[in-house]
Amino acid sequence: MKPPDRRDAEALDAADPLAAIRDRFVIADPDRIYLDGNSLGPLSVDVRAAIGAILDDWGERGVEGWNDWIELPTRVGDRLAASVLGAGSGEVLIADSVTVNLYKLATAAADLRPGPIVTDDGNFPTDRYVLEGVARQRGRDYIEAPNAEAAIEASAHGVLCLSHVDYRSGALLDMASITAATDALLIWDLSHSAGAVEVDLSAADLAVGCTYKYLNAGPGAPAFLYVRRDLQEAMHSPIQGWFGRREQFGMGAAYEPADGIERFAAGTPSVVGLAAVDASLGLIEQATMAAIASKARSLTGLAVQLADSWLPSLGVQVGSPRDPSTRGSHIALRHPEAWPICRALIERAHVIPDYRPPDIVRLGFTPLTTRFADVWDGLNRLRRLVEDGEHHLVTAAPRRVT
Amino acid sequence: MKPPDRRDAEALDAADPLAAIRDRFVIADPDRIYLDGNSLGPLSVDVRAAIGAILDDWGERGVEGWNDWIELPTRVGDRLAASVLGAGSGEVLIADSVTVNLYKLATAAADLRPGPIVTDDGNFPTDRYVLEGVARQRGRDYIEAPNAEAAIEASAHGVLCLSHVDYRSGALLDMASITAATDALLIWDLSHSAGAVEVDLSAADLAVGCTYKYLNAGPGAPAFLYVRRDLQEAMHSPIQGWFGRREQFGMGAAYEPADGIERFAAGTPSVVGLAAVDASLGLIEQATMAAIASKARSLTGLAVQLADSWLPSLGVQVGSPRDPSTRGSHIALRHPEAWPICRALIERAHVIPDYRPPDIVRLGFTPLTTRFADVWDGLNRLRRLVEDGEHHLVTAAPRRVT
Repeated sequence: MKPPDRRDAEALDAADPLAAIRDRFVIADPDRIYLDGNSLGPLSVDVRAAIGAILDDWGERGVEGWNDWIELPTRVGDRLAASVLGAGSGEVLIADSVTVNLYKLATAAADLRPGPIVTDDGNFPTDRYVLEGVARQRGRDYIEAPNAEAAIEASAHGVLCLSHVDYRSGALLDMASITAATDALLIWDLSHSAGAVEVDLSAADLAVGCTYKYLNAGPGAPAFLYVRRDLQEAMHSPIQGWFGRREQFGMGAAYEPADGIERFAAGTPSVVGLAAVDASLGLIEQATMAAIASKARSLTGLAVQLADSWLPSLGVQVGSPRDPSTRGSHIALRHPEAWPICRALIERAHVIPDYRPPDIVRLGFTPLTTRFADVWDGLNRLRRLVEDGEHHLVTAAPRRVT
Repeated sequence: MKPPDRRDAEALDAADPLAAIRDRFVIADPDRIYLDGNSLGPLSVDVRAAIGAILDDWGERGVEGWNDWIELPTRVGDRLAASVLGAGSGEVLIADSVTVNLYKLATAAADLRPGPIVTDDGNFPTDRYVLEGVARQRGRDYIEAPNAEAAIEASAHGVLCLSHVDYRSGALLDMASITAATDALLIWDLSHSAGAVEVDLSAADLAVGCTYKYLNAGPGAPAFLYVRRDLQEAMHSPIQGWFGRREQFGMGAAYEPADGIERFAAGTPSVVGLAAVDASLGLIEQATMAAIASKARSLTGLAVQLADSWLPSLGVQVGSPRDPSTRGSHIALRHPEAWPICRALIERAHVIPDYRPPDIVRLGFTPLTTRFADVWDGLNRLRRLVEDGEHHLVTAAPRRVT
């Protein structure tokens, strides 16, 4: 079958219901093809304006601003729950980082379950590091299974943590069937799925995720955590901070956890970061998650189709699922020289991909800004670059944050 | 002795070497007297510009920005160490919140010392809550002593946490003599002293503190932590995050802590918050901590003098040390109706103080922006308000963050 040509990609853009929303984002260099929104999403004018407004508020009201800001972690959490996560009101909190939130939830979960703490050995590094530490501190076995199935098998009566979308391959797990299949307390890491695929947490136990990838809230914007309502009362954060205390400003003697999701708060939240998350959700609501997820499947579908047509003869293989219902919004291309290919794409082809050891060129597509023509051009530049051996001319070492 | 009149205060402003730096801050309402910089410092044009610049950087470079941003937690930490904390290079990290940082350091300290975890019962609530939780999780005794001396006494072979400046009275502890007097691992909470008094951590073990009070970096800006260099290798953060791992981007199998202060990092840092801290330190360096601390002593000195002259006959007593070398940059005024007095100051007198249960009107002075005339006017408005019984006319309930 003949692969799509560039006019086919342009036709997809012309028919794209999300095409106009790209104008709400800062596209600093129209010739650069940014395929790393799964590491860091793009800046929108909405986020910039919201940060400006919250600075104005700080400047005008000083500490009196806290009368409103105090509600942001739960108010923006509720908004994220409804727009993106398929969770209920009072089940999501914006706070801290994914690492700190996973530490809180994994520790609280371990205190409820006598079994081992389990993940798969391909899970994102910080998840594995945190879980191993929690297991040691709580005197539990820590198991890194070779895959999700084996992890589910090994986690009976324990705590299980899985990434909804794999940070390397982009493979999407079936949340509903896995949740039904395990008796472990299950923590989903949604970092690579929130804002990329439709998420339905309604039957899930626990989740964490970040806001700087497909939620486009900026580098180091605060993360989120989810605890299903009926689990909240039994779970206790190991980090007993004043923002998680009942009647915080009574400044009472002993710690007592707040009634709802606020008990998982710790210290003073980043108000600037919360304003960014809030504004970014406004754009996602305008687009709708259904349309975003649909476009993600089409973007990755075009990329897989082009890669399968153009790249195997150059030694580059698709390392992602071919069924669009089982992947997120990024794909992996495997090649032994993945690192120099990534560097050459950045230095010589004006394409921004990401490298993941040992052999992955990762291409992430932001449905709110990436055009089908960008996918075509990006894959085409990669093809020409490898054909021409330009990846043998690169120099610097990579250093990047997912 | 006759109390200073307003012309005396104006003369102090005319001679103030820091007077000009006030123009670098946003003074939204010149008639409002903001005396709560110890809860939330004011917005500067420098911080606003730095946040705008980091957003530009994100917009222009996307994920490539991380090649520089990755160094911010230690680079800005080094700057804070040198300008404000009297600490060395490689001893300070900007990260997370005070609550999370105290949790990390207290847990790591408890793993080194067999004794109890001790603080005083007047320490800031989040410190007491966190320490109690750590003690329970580590199986140690938790002791809240009635004062610092008793806490030092009780902490042999254990972990001690003290606030350098008391969040209510403003009393400043003698760091050098206390550090010499205890064999406990001692964690200083510098939240109410960093940027207000001269700090010399060179002999101290451990410290935490926030950047949104006297460091003026904005609501929820990231906090800092300090670990003396020779203690770092033996201490392990309980939160094993990828930013604290040796060779983070190798994404290796098992967690190994980084060599230096980075081992106390956890998740992705707030780049916007780090830019704010960095810019705010620029203003502090221009002013110099010596000049800031000197002005703080003079501002609180004027306030104490006026309060002692005007207020005892109205039932208001100074609840802060009278020796300027033993207090920070805020003072406590005690009155049984402190809460309605605070509300009336805000609603009827255009003065922003802070209320601390049960009986404290807290007045904080930001040396970079507070004028001696502001101190005089603020105290005078408080005097007139109580004389006229206006505090009996207030309505709403307070809700505020320190």
